[in-house]
Amino acid sequence: MKSYRKELWFEIPARRGFVNITPQVEACLAESGVSEGLVLVNAMHITASVFINDDERGLLHDYEVWLEELAPHAPTSHYHHNRTGEDNADAHLKRQVMGREVVVAVTEGKLDFGPWEQIFYGEFDGRRRKRVLVKIIGA
Amino acid sequence: MKSYRKELWFEIPARRGFVNITPQVEACLAESGVSEGLVLVNAMHITASVFINDDERGLLHDYEVWLEELAPHAPTSHYHHNRTGEDNADAHLKRQVMGREVVVAVTEGKLDFGPWEQIFYGEFDGRRRKRVLVKIIGA
Amino acid sequence: MKSYRKELWFEIPARRGFVNITPQVEACLAESGVSEGLVLVNAMHITASVFINDDERGLLHDYEVWLEELAPHAPTSHYHHNRTGEDNADAHLKRQVMGREVVVAVTEGKLDFGPWEQIFYGEFDGRRRKRVLVKIIGA
Repeated sequence: MKSYRKELWFEIPARRGFVNITPQVEACLAESGVSEGLVLVNAMHITASVFINDDERGLLHDYEVWLEELAPHAPTSHYHHNRTGEDNADAHLKRQVMGREVVVAVTEGKLDFGPWEQIFYGEFDGRRRKRVLVKIIGA
Repeated sequence: MKSYRKELWFEIPARRGFVNITPQVEACLAESGVSEGLVLVNAMHITASVFINDDERGLLHDYEVWLEELAPHAPTSHYHHNRTGEDNADAHLKRQVMGREVVVAVTEGKLDFGPWEQIFYGEFDGRRRKRVLVKIIGA
Repeated sequence: MKSYRKELWFEIPARRGFVNITPQVEACLAESGVSEGLVLVNAMHITASVFINDDERGLLHDYEVWLEELAPHAPTSHYHHNRTGEDNADAHLKRQVMGREVVVAVTEGKLDFGPWEQIFYGEFDGRRRKRVLVKIIGA
Protein backbone atom coordinates (compact mmCIF):
# COMPACT_ATOMS: atom_id res chain seq x y z
CA MET A 1 0.00 0.00 0.00
CA LYS A 2 1.27 3.46 -0.92
CA SER A 3 0.57 6.49 1.23
CA TYR A 4 1.16 10.19 0.65
CA ARG A 5 0.74 13.31 2.79
CA LYS A 6 0.91 16.99 2.06
CA GLU A 7 -0.21 20.21 3.73
CA LEU A 8 -1.59 23.05 1.64
CA TRP A 9 -1.39 26.52 3.21
CA PHE A 10 -3.79 29.40 2.67
CA GLU A 11 -4.13 32.95 3.91
CA ILE A 12 -7.49 34.42 2.97
CA PRO A 13 -7.30 38.23 3.28
CA ALA A 14 -10.95 38.60 4.43
CA ARG A 15 -12.88 36.91 7.22
CA ARG A 16 -14.62 34.65 4.71
CA GLY A 17 -13.79 33.33 1.24
CA PHE A 18 -13.77 30.31 -1.06
CA VAL A 19 -10.79 28.97 -3.04
CA ASN A 20 -10.88 26.25 -5.70
CA ILE A 21 -8.07 23.89 -4.65
CA THR A 22 -8.67 21.16 -7.25
CA PRO A 23 -5.41 21.86 -9.14
CA GLN A 24 -3.35 21.52 -5.95
CA VAL A 25 -5.05 18.23 -5.05
CA GLU A 26 -4.47 16.95 -8.59
CA ALA A 27 -0.79 17.85 -8.27
CA CYS A 28 -0.61 15.91 -4.99
CA LEU A 29 -2.20 12.90 -6.65
CA ALA A 30 0.27 12.97 -9.54
CA GLU A 31 3.15 13.23 -7.05
CA SER A 32 1.80 10.31 -4.98
CA GLY A 33 1.98 7.78 -7.79
CA VAL A 34 -1.29 6.23 -6.56
CA SER A 35 -3.48 4.91 -9.37
CA GLU A 36 -6.29 3.20 -7.38
CA GLY A 37 -7.31 4.37 -3.93
CA LEU A 38 -8.82 7.19 -1.90
CA VAL A 39 -7.89 10.83 -1.33
CA LEU A 40 -8.87 12.51 1.93
CA VAL A 41 -8.82 16.32 1.86
CA ASN A 42 -9.66 18.01 5.17
CA ALA A 43 -9.41 21.37 6.84
CA MET A 44 -6.93 21.14 9.73
CA HIS A 45 -8.73 24.06 11.41
CA ILE A 46 -12.16 23.99 12.98
CA THR A 47 -13.40 27.26 11.48
CA ALA A 48 -12.87 26.21 7.85
CA SER A 49 -14.31 23.63 5.46
CA VAL A 50 -13.33 21.51 2.52
CA PHE A 51 -16.27 20.74 0.25
CA ILE A 52 -17.12 19.82 -3.32
CA ASN A 53 -19.41 21.90 -5.46
CA ASP A 54 -19.58 24.08 -8.56
CA ASP A 55 -17.00 26.75 -9.39
CA GLU A 56 -19.57 29.41 -10.25
CA ARG A 57 -19.23 32.92 -8.84
CA GLY A 58 -22.95 33.44 -8.27
CA LEU A 59 -23.25 30.20 -6.32
CA LEU A 60 -20.33 31.09 -4.07
CA HIS A 61 -22.10 34.40 -3.37
CA ASP A 62 -25.28 32.46 -2.56
CA TYR A 63 -23.40 30.21 -0.10
CA GLU A 64 -22.00 33.30 1.64
CA VAL A 65 -25.44 34.91 2.02
CA TRP A 66 -27.14 31.66 3.06
CA LEU A 67 -24.54 30.70 5.68
CA GLU A 68 -24.78 34.18 7.18
CA GLU A 69 -28.55 33.67 7.47
CA LEU A 70 -28.21 30.22 9.05
CA ALA A 71 -25.45 31.23 11.47
CA PRO A 72 -25.02 35.02 11.66
CA HIS A 73 -21.70 36.51 12.72
CA ALA A 74 -23.36 39.29 14.72
CA PRO A 75 -24.35 39.99 17.38
CA THR A 76 -21.20 38.22 18.50
CA SER A 77 -22.45 38.37 22.12
CA HIS A 78 -25.19 35.91 21.11
CA TYR A 79 -22.65 33.06 21.30
CA HIS A 80 -21.20 31.72 24.55
CA HIS A 81 -18.04 30.68 22.68
CA ASN A 82 -17.24 34.34 22.13
CA ARG A 83 -17.02 34.88 25.91
CA THR A 84 -13.57 33.29 25.61
CA GLY A 85 -12.44 36.45 23.81
CA GLU A 86 -13.04 35.03 20.32
CA ASP A 87 -15.51 36.49 17.81
CA ASN A 88 -15.62 33.42 15.57
CA ALA A 89 -18.38 31.22 17.02
CA ASP A 90 -20.37 31.62 13.80
CA ALA A 91 -17.40 30.22 11.85
CA HIS A 92 -17.56 26.97 13.87
CA LEU A 93 -21.26 26.68 12.98
CA LYS A 94 -20.88 27.53 9.29
CA ARG A 95 -18.14 24.93 8.99
CA GLN A 96 -20.51 22.19 10.19
CA VAL A 97 -22.99 23.01 7.40
CA MET A 98 -20.32 22.89 4.70
CA GLY A 99 -18.33 20.01 6.20
CA ARG A 100 -14.76 19.37 7.34
CA GLU A 101 -13.57 16.97 4.66
CA VAL A 102 -14.13 15.20 1.38
CA VAL A 103 -13.11 11.71 0.35
CA VAL A 104 -12.57 11.27 -3.38
CA ALA A 105 -12.02 8.08 -5.34
CA VAL A 106 -8.81 7.67 -7.34
CA THR A 107 -9.23 5.68 -10.55
CA GLU A 108 -6.48 5.19 -13.13
CA GLY A 109 -4.43 7.88 -11.42
CA LYS A 110 -7.12 10.59 -11.64
CA LEU A 111 -9.69 12.15 -9.27
CA ASP A 112 -12.81 10.19 -10.20
CA PHE A 113 -15.16 13.13 -10.61
CA GLY A 114 -18.46 13.90 -12.26
CA PRO A 115 -18.52 16.74 -14.78
CA TRP A 116 -18.81 19.73 -12.41
CA GLU A 117 -17.17 18.53 -9.20
CA GLN A 118 -14.52 20.89 -7.86
CA ILE A 119 -12.85 20.89 -4.44
CA PHE A 120 -13.07 24.10 -2.41
CA TYR A 121 -11.45 25.46 0.68
CA GLY A 122 -14.08 27.43 2.59
CA GLU A 123 -12.70 29.98 5.03
CA PHE A 124 -14.95 31.39 7.76
CA ASP A 125 -12.34 33.02 10.00
CA GLY A 126 -9.49 34.13 7.80
CA ARG A 127 -6.81 36.80 7.82
CA ARG A 128 -4.24 34.29 9.05
CA ARG A 129 -2.34 31.29 7.67
CA LYS A 130 -4.30 28.04 7.85
CA ARG A 131 -3.81 24.53 6.51
CA VAL A 132 -5.53 21.77 4.54
CA LEU A 133 -4.32 18.16 4.73
CA VAL A 134 -4.17 15.91 1.66
CA LYS A 135 -3.75 12.23 2.49
CA ILE A 136 -3.75 9.60 -0.26
CA ILE A 137 -3.72 5.85 0.21
CA GLY A 138 -3.88 3.11 -2.40
CA ALA A 139 -1.79 1.20 -4.86
CA MET B 1 -4.98 -4.17 -2.19
CA LYS B 2 -8.18 -4.77 -4.14
CA SER B 3 -10.12 -1.92 -5.70
CA TYR B 4 -13.53 -1.81 -7.32
CA ARG B 5 -15.52 0.90 -9.11
CA LYS B 6 -19.07 1.11 -10.34
CA GLU B 7 -21.45 3.87 -11.41
CA LEU B 8 -25.11 3.66 -10.45
CA TRP B 9 -27.52 5.65 -12.64
CA PHE B 10 -30.78 7.26 -11.55
CA GLU B 11 -33.49 9.29 -13.19
CA ILE B 12 -35.85 10.77 -10.62
CA PRO B 13 -39.08 11.85 -12.36
CA ALA B 14 -39.66 14.86 -10.06
CA ARG B 15 -37.39 17.72 -9.05
CA ARG B 16 -36.74 16.12 -5.68
CA GLY B 17 -36.83 12.59 -4.32
CA PHE B 18 -35.07 10.00 -2.16
CA VAL B 19 -34.10 6.46 -3.17
CA ASN B 20 -32.80 3.72 -0.88
CA ILE B 21 -29.72 2.43 -2.73
CA THR B 22 -28.47 0.02 -0.05
CA PRO B 23 -29.23 -3.11 -2.12
CA GLN B 24 -27.22 -1.79 -5.08
CA VAL B 25 -24.25 -0.95 -2.84
CA GLU B 26 -24.45 -4.41 -1.24
CA ALA B 27 -24.40 -5.96 -4.72
CA CYS B 28 -21.29 -3.92 -5.58
CA LEU B 29 -19.60 -5.10 -2.40
CA ALA B 30 -20.37 -8.74 -3.15
CA GLU B 31 -19.00 -8.28 -6.69
CA SER B 32 -15.83 -6.61 -5.39
CA GLY B 33 -14.70 -9.57 -3.32
CA VAL B 34 -13.45 -7.17 -0.63
CA SER B 35 -13.86 -8.52 2.91
CA GLU B 36 -12.07 -5.83 4.95
CA GLY B 37 -11.90 -2.22 3.81
CA LEU B 38 -13.87 0.92 3.05
CA VAL B 39 -16.69 1.76 0.65
CA LEU B 40 -17.04 5.31 -0.64
CA VAL B 41 -20.45 6.16 -2.11
CA ASN B 42 -20.77 9.68 -3.54
CA ALA B 43 -23.03 11.70 -5.77
CA MET B 44 -21.14 12.60 -8.97
CA HIS B 45 -23.41 15.63 -9.38
CA ILE B 46 -23.37 18.76 -7.24
CA THR B 47 -27.14 19.05 -6.83
CA ALA B 48 -27.59 15.61 -5.26
CA SER B 49 -26.56 13.87 -2.05
CA VAL B 50 -25.69 10.46 -0.73
CA PHE B 51 -26.52 10.09 2.96
CA ILE B 52 -27.33 7.47 5.58
CA ASN B 53 -30.51 7.55 7.58
CA ASP B 54 -33.77 5.70 8.25
CA ASP B 55 -35.98 4.27 5.50
CA GLU B 56 -39.19 5.66 6.97
CA ARG B 57 -41.67 7.44 4.72
CA GLY B 58 -42.64 10.09 7.28
CA LEU B 59 -39.01 11.02 7.91
CA LEU B 60 -38.30 11.42 4.19
CA HIS B 61 -41.30 13.77 4.05
CA ASP B 62 -39.87 15.69 7.01
CA TYR B 63 -36.50 16.07 5.27
CA GLU B 64 -38.25 17.42 2.17
CA VAL B 65 -40.20 20.03 4.17
CA TRP B 66 -37.24 21.00 6.34
CA LEU B 67 -34.78 21.41 3.45
CA GLU B 68 -37.30 23.59 1.64
CA GLU B 69 -37.49 25.78 4.77
CA LEU B 70 -33.70 26.01 5.11
CA ALA B 71 -33.06 26.68 1.40
CA PRO B 72 -36.28 27.50 -0.48
CA HIS B 73 -36.50 26.88 -4.20
CA ALA B 74 -38.50 30.08 -4.80
CA PRO B 75 -38.22 32.91 -5.44
CA THR B 76 -35.55 31.65 -7.82
CA SER B 77 -34.46 35.24 -8.46
CA HIS B 78 -33.22 35.37 -4.85
CA TYR B 79 -30.11 33.43 -5.90
CA HIS B 80 -27.29 34.87 -8.01
CA HIS B 81 -26.50 31.39 -9.35
CA ASN B 82 -29.84 31.41 -11.15
CA ARG B 83 -28.72 34.44 -13.21
CA THR B 84 -26.76 31.90 -15.26
CA GLY B 85 -30.09 30.63 -16.59
CA GLU B 86 -30.37 27.83 -14.02
CA ASP B 87 -33.17 27.53 -11.48
CA ASN B 88 -31.39 25.05 -9.21
CA ALA B 89 -29.38 27.20 -6.79
CA ASP B 90 -31.43 25.83 -3.89
CA ALA B 91 -30.41 22.29 -4.90
CA HIS B 92 -26.72 23.19 -4.42
CA LEU B 93 -27.56 24.45 -0.91
CA LYS B 94 -29.76 21.50 0.08
CA ARG B 95 -27.02 19.11 -1.01
CA GLN B 96 -24.55 20.69 1.44
CA VAL B 97 -26.92 20.05 4.37
CA MET B 98 -27.40 16.40 3.44
CA GLY B 99 -23.81 15.79 2.26
CA ARG B 100 -22.08 14.55 -0.90
CA GLU B 101 -20.82 11.18 0.26
CA VAL B 102 -20.70 8.44 2.85
CA VAL B 103 -17.81 6.20 3.82
CA VAL B 104 -18.85 2.83 5.19
CA ALA B 105 -16.70 0.17 6.83
CA VAL B 106 -16.53 -3.29 5.27
CA THR B 107 -16.17 -6.11 7.79
CA GLU B 108 -16.24 -9.80 6.88
CA GLY B 109 -17.54 -8.91 3.43
CA LYS B 110 -20.57 -6.92 4.69
CA LEU B 111 -21.48 -3.25 5.12
CA ASP B 112 -20.73 -2.75 8.81
CA PHE B 113 -23.99 -1.06 9.78
CA GLY B 114 -26.01 -0.37 12.89
CA PRO B 115 -29.59 -1.65 12.96
CA TRP B 116 -31.31 1.15 11.01
CA GLU B 117 -28.60 2.50 8.71
CA GLN B 118 -29.65 2.68 5.06
CA ILE B 119 -27.89 4.50 2.21
CA PHE B 120 -29.98 7.03 0.26
CA TYR B 121 -29.59 8.93 -2.95
CA GLY B 122 -31.08 12.39 -2.43
CA GLU B 123 -32.07 14.20 -5.61
CA PHE B 124 -32.66 17.96 -5.52
CA ASP B 125 -32.67 18.71 -9.26
CA GLY B 126 -34.01 15.66 -11.02
CA ARG B 127 -35.85 14.83 -14.21
CA ARG B 128 -32.59 13.78 -15.87
CA ARG B 129 -30.11 10.90 -15.66
CA LYS B 130 -27.53 11.33 -12.92
CA ARG B 131 -24.86 9.13 -11.36
CA VAL B 132 -23.55 7.83 -8.06
CA LEU B 133 -20.04 6.42 -7.73
CA VAL B 134 -19.26 3.35 -5.63
CA LYS B 135 -15.55 2.86 -4.92
CA ILE B 136 -14.34 0.04 -2.71
CA ILE B 137 -10.81 -0.54 -1.49
CA GLY B 138 -9.51 -3.21 0.81
CA ALA B 139 -8.36 -6.78 0.97
CA MET C 1 -3.13 -4.22 4.42
CA LYS C 2 -4.01 -4.14 8.11
CA SER C 3 -7.56 -3.61 9.28
CA TYR C 4 -9.01 -3.00 12.72
CA ARG C 5 -12.54 -2.67 14.10
CA LYS C 6 -13.94 -1.63 17.43
CA GLU C 7 -17.30 -0.50 18.79
CA LEU C 8 -17.44 2.24 21.41
CA TRP C 9 -20.58 2.32 23.57
CA PHE C 10 -22.20 5.37 25.11
CA GLU C 11 -25.22 6.07 27.26
CA ILE C 12 -25.95 9.78 27.46
CA PRO C 13 -28.27 10.43 30.44
CA ALA C 14 -30.11 13.33 28.74
CA ARG C 15 -31.82 13.58 25.36
CA ARG C 16 -28.87 15.51 23.94
CA GLY C 17 -25.18 15.78 24.75
CA PHE C 18 -21.65 15.90 23.39
CA VAL C 19 -18.71 13.70 24.40
CA ASN C 20 -15.08 14.11 23.37
CA ILE C 21 -14.08 10.63 22.19
CA THR C 22 -10.60 11.48 20.91
CA PRO C 23 -8.80 9.48 23.64
CA GLN C 24 -10.81 6.34 22.82
CA VAL C 25 -10.04 6.69 19.10
CA GLU C 26 -6.35 7.22 19.88
CA ALA C 27 -6.39 4.04 21.96
CA CYS C 28 -7.94 2.15 19.05
CA LEU C 29 -5.26 3.47 16.72
CA ALA C 30 -2.48 2.39 19.07
CA GLU C 31 -4.07 -1.08 19.36
CA SER C 32 -4.40 -1.38 15.56
CA GLY C 33 -0.70 -1.07 14.86
CA VAL C 34 -1.48 0.97 11.74
CA SER C 35 1.10 3.67 11.02
CA GLU C 36 -0.12 4.99 7.64
CA GLY C 37 -3.77 4.86 6.62
CA LEU C 38 -7.26 6.13 7.35
CA VAL C 39 -9.55 5.98 10.39
CA LEU C 40 -13.31 6.02 9.89
CA VAL C 41 -15.34 6.93 12.98
CA ASN C 42 -19.11 6.82 12.52
CA ALA C 43 -22.28 6.79 14.56
CA MET C 44 -24.01 3.43 14.10
CA HIS C 45 -27.32 5.10 14.97
CA ILE C 46 -29.23 7.54 12.81
CA THR C 47 -30.06 10.02 15.56
CA ALA C 48 -26.45 10.67 16.53
CA SER C 49 -23.37 12.24 14.95
CA VAL C 50 -19.63 11.97 14.96
CA PHE C 51 -17.94 15.28 14.14
CA ILE C 52 -14.69 17.16 14.65
CA ASN C 53 -14.56 20.55 16.29
CA ASP C 54 -13.29 22.42 19.34
CA ASP C 55 -13.57 21.10 22.91
CA GLU C 56 -14.83 24.38 24.33
CA ARG C 57 -17.83 24.39 26.65
CA GLY C 58 -19.34 27.61 25.30
CA LEU C 59 -19.19 26.33 21.72
CA LEU C 60 -20.94 23.08 22.63
CA HIS C 61 -23.66 25.19 24.23
CA ASP C 62 -23.89 27.25 21.02
CA TYR C 63 -24.27 24.08 18.92
CA GLU C 64 -27.09 22.93 21.19
CA VAL C 65 -28.98 26.24 20.90
CA TRP C 66 -28.37 26.55 17.14
CA LEU C 67 -29.44 23.01 16.30
CA GLU C 68 -32.62 23.50 18.30
CA GLU C 69 -33.33 26.63 16.23
CA LEU C 70 -32.65 24.87 12.91
CA ALA C 71 -34.62 21.72 13.76
CA PRO C 72 -36.77 22.20 16.89
CA HIS C 73 -37.79 19.20 18.99
CA ALA C 74 -41.29 20.61 19.64
CA PRO C 75 -44.02 20.66 18.61
CA THR C 76 -43.35 16.97 18.00
CA SER C 77 -46.60 16.74 16.02
CA HIS C 78 -44.98 18.94 13.37
CA TYR C 79 -43.07 15.90 12.05
CA HIS C 80 -44.65 13.04 10.14
CA HIS C 81 -41.94 10.69 11.43
CA ASN C 82 -43.37 11.09 14.92
CA ARG C 83 -46.68 9.58 13.78
CA THR C 84 -44.86 6.23 14.05
CA GLY C 85 -44.95 6.70 17.83
CA GLU C 86 -41.44 8.22 18.00
CA ASP C 87 -40.70 11.72 19.25
CA ASN C 88 -37.21 11.93 17.75
CA ALA C 89 -37.73 13.30 14.22
CA ASP C 90 -35.73 16.40 15.14
CA ALA C 91 -32.80 14.16 16.10
CA HIS C 92 -32.67 12.73 12.56
CA LEU C 93 -32.50 16.29 11.19
CA LYS C 94 -29.92 17.58 13.67
CA ARG C 95 -27.69 14.62 12.87
CA GLN C 96 -27.62 15.59 9.18
CA VAL C 97 -26.31 19.07 10.03
CA MET C 98 -23.53 17.70 12.24
CA GLY C 99 -22.76 14.63 10.08
CA ARG C 100 -22.62 10.86 10.55
CA GLU C 101 -18.90 10.23 10.30
CA VAL C 102 -15.39 11.56 10.12
CA VAL C 103 -12.42 10.20 8.20
CA VAL C 104 -9.06 11.04 9.72
CA ALA C 105 -5.59 10.51 8.27
CA VAL C 106 -3.12 8.33 10.15
CA THR C 107 0.51 9.44 9.81
CA GLU C 108 3.40 7.84 11.68
CA GLY C 109 0.93 6.04 13.91
CA LYS C 110 -0.91 9.19 15.06
CA LEU C 111 -4.19 10.93 14.22
CA ASP C 112 -2.97 13.59 11.78
CA PHE C 113 -4.73 16.57 13.33
CA GLY C 114 -4.46 20.34 13.32
CA PRO C 115 -3.98 22.07 16.67
CA TRP C 116 -7.62 22.13 17.88
CA GLU C 117 -9.24 19.15 16.18
CA GLN C 118 -11.09 16.86 18.60
CA ILE C 119 -13.55 14.06 17.74
CA PHE C 120 -17.00 14.29 19.31
CA TYR C 121 -19.94 11.98 19.69
CA GLY C 122 -23.09 14.07 19.34
CA GLU C 123 -26.19 12.53 20.87
CA PHE C 124 -29.63 13.84 19.87
CA ASP C 125 -31.83 11.06 21.24
CA GLY C 126 -30.09 9.63 24.25
CA ARG C 127 -31.04 7.91 27.50
CA ARG C 128 -30.15 4.52 26.02
CA ARG C 129 -27.01 2.62 25.01
CA LYS C 130 -25.75 3.48 21.52
CA ARG C 131 -22.65 2.70 19.51
CA VAL C 132 -19.87 4.31 17.48
CA LEU C 133 -17.80 2.28 15.02
CA VAL C 134 -14.05 2.78 14.65
CA LYS C 135 -12.59 1.17 11.52
CA ILE C 136 -8.93 1.58 10.63
CA ILE C 137 -7.23 0.45 7.45
CA GLY C 138 -3.65 0.92 6.37
CA ALA C 139 -0.17 -0.46 6.74
